[in-house]
Amino acid sequence: MRISCTQIKLNKGLSIVSRIVGARTTLPVLSNIYLEAKNGQLKLSATDLEIGVTTSIGAKVDEEGSLTVPARLISDFIAANSDENLDIESKATTLHLKSARYEANIKGIDSSEYPVLPDISKDSLLELPVDEFTRAISEVVVACATDDTRPVLSGIYFKFEKDTLYLVATDSYRLAEKKINIPGLDDDREFIVPARTMQEVLRIASAIETTEKIGISATENQVSFTIAGTQIVSRLIEGSFPNYKQIIPISFKSSAEIELRDFSSAIKMASLFARQGGNNVKIKFAGSEVIITSIADQVGDNISNVPAVISVESEEITFNAKYIGDILQVLPDKKMIFEVNDKFSAGVIRPEKAKDFVYIIMPLRVEE
Amino acid sequence: MRISCTQIKLNKGLSIVSRIVGARTTLPVLSNIYLEAKNGQLKLSATDLEIGVTTSIGAKVDEEGSLTVPARLISDFIAANSDENLDIESKATTLHLKSARYEANIKGIDSSEYPVLPDISKDSLLELPVDEFTRAISEVVVACATDDTRPVLSGIYFKFEKDTLYLVATDSYRLAEKKINIPGLDDDREFIVPARTMQEVLRIASAIETTEKIGISATENQVSFTIAGTQIVSRLIEGSFPNYKQIIPISFKSSAEIELRDFSSAIKMASLFARQGGNNVKIKFAGSEVIITSIADQVGDNISNVPAVISVESEEITFNAKYIGDILQVLPDKKMIFEVNDKFSAGVIRPEKAKDFVYIIMPLRVEE
Repeated sequence: MRISCTQIKLNKGLSIVSRIVGARTTLPVLSNIYLEAKNGQLKLSATDLEIGVTTSIGAKVDEEGSLTVPARLISDFIAANSDENLDIESKATTLHLKSARYEANIKGIDSSEYPVLPDISKDSLLELPVDEFTRAISEVVVACATDDTRPVLSGIYFKFEKDTLYLVATDSYRLAEKKINIPGLDDDREFIVPARTMQEVLRIASAIETTEKIGISATENQVSFTIAGTQIVSRLIEGSFPNYKQIIPISFKSSAEIELRDFSSAIKMASLFARQGGNNVKIKFAGSEVIITSIADQVGDNISNVPAVISVESEEITFNAKYIGDILQVLPDKKMIFEVNDKFSAGVIRPEKAKDFVYIIMPLRVEE
Repeated sequence: MRISCTQIKLNKGLSIVSRIVGARTTLPVLSNIYLEAKNGQLKLSATDLEIGVTTSIGAKVDEEGSLTVPARLISDFIAANSDENLDIESKATTLHLKSARYEANIKGIDSSEYPVLPDISKDSLLELPVDEFTRAISEVVVACATDDTRPVLSGIYFKFEKDTLYLVATDSYRLAEKKINIPGLDDDREFIVPARTMQEVLRIASAIETTEKIGISATENQVSFTIAGTQIVSRLIEGSFPNYKQIIPISFKSSAEIELRDFSSAIKMASLFARQGGNNVKIKFAGSEVIITSIADQVGDNISNVPAVISVESEEITFNAKYIGDILQVLPDKKMIFEVNDKFSAGVIRPEKAKDFVYIIMPLRVEE
């Protein structure tokens, strides 16, 4: 291959794909980025065999071809390069890069050794505005299980129904469900995407900063997300997602409308004390306040009285402070609603205005 | 003790002192911050027995007294607290903190168990503008040894002479010397301050953001730096600093005037290749360029041609890229001067304009 391109474009392309390469040394070529010059474009791909990312940048292609080169070395080299334009040429398995002041030869591996990344973007399911989709994912992904004891819980469940896409995650202690209204959607597919894939989609979407739509495609075993020419392909998690609908409470005895920031401060403080002892915090709706209490025998105790609009007073219910704190960091509104029944029943946190999101937390059974 | 103060002041005071407390668990009280209410002020102190930091904040003192409380817990609690004012009261060894919405009891340890921090600020040696002193320290401290094989090399050497303070550091591979002109100074003291102490002085000076002067005091075993009411006390390193003057080259065959940013990019790139093999880079002054070469058999190679004003061409000299990179990060000017003799002699890097700083690097002997 022989091409010319700008440092800015190449640097951006490399930063999008280079995070995917694994620390796996069993297959050295996976530490590399696959470069392919064709049709006025330089295609960049990386994969760790679970997730694959492909993006393209505009380039002047004088000679088509492909090669793989170490991801970290080429990324760091291009990031440090302050010249405007680069001439890049492959000679056997070495990539020669030349710009006004800087020049390098980087030893690579023949591109025939690189695994073929499937392009499944033609099996398109739907398109969504990027900001709507990424907000939904960031609200749901916090509830994914972080271990693999039950693999189906370590991903986000995509459930297509008529006019609606549900995104759901649960680690069995808390559950997040987002409902995206898509008029005209007529599908009944369902699949589970690894949480790590969704984190990468969030990272890449934020790096690309586009107003274009995100395209979602899926086959039986794989899913892909396409944003402005960048495609993230991932394996799906096998298995059935639990039938969760039954655990979403239908009605509540008590509700509290609270300033998100105040409640967030209170939960942070309670965690400081609770972290010594299982992260238990006690929450009670009383008068015009939500009262948050946390006691650690060795350390001290903490009580916060956060102003709130309370419908009916509640009994004291024990929750895990981490599960509350996680969702407060990603809620979009300034105000939130906290609804509870009793100390044996799930509570619900949701943004004040949105009816399309619920976050359910199981209370902790505490010996009295 | 019983006091009132603002969250902002207490938060700042805690952030200044709390980093010093060690992870040492042999003496639990050292994980605590010492608080003392007296004369309209709350004094905060922390120490790891090598470095001690004391600062004071304005407070309404209703009852004098002192107590020590866990540094991390009180710092995190106050940082998360969004109320404006705090009432703080000690009851036996528990500290009670109350603000509009938030309240806590933090269990502490009696202040009698806390080591007494010496106040040596009365043994004042001199005062210097904070920005001048911190710039000098950040230029010199990079040359300190990072291990303790020769303790005297792990600190900055302060040498007082008539009208001049010299600050010097060397790890025996490179040496930095800064000369601060202080008309009227008449002293001949010398001492070595641990690099870690100087890093803390830099951190605290940058947190305090004052235009006041920094006061330096010293006794036989200790040194203190006082900035706007905050005092950092540290032990000195015992032993004699090497007689370094002889290794500063007096004249040079070749000099190059280079844009700092260009040279910095080139060294960064060369390091990417050189890090696989002892960090060797080759430097040569030729024509109107400084040529930087780095070769790693397994990885590839890199050559940079950085425009420069060259006095006389030089032979190729091998240096450790890290030693060059370290100083480029802290030099203040846009241009720098690089002076060399031959491949067996030390080179010198200095800012274009300043005559008060030299950074000397020994070349590497490379088998041909």
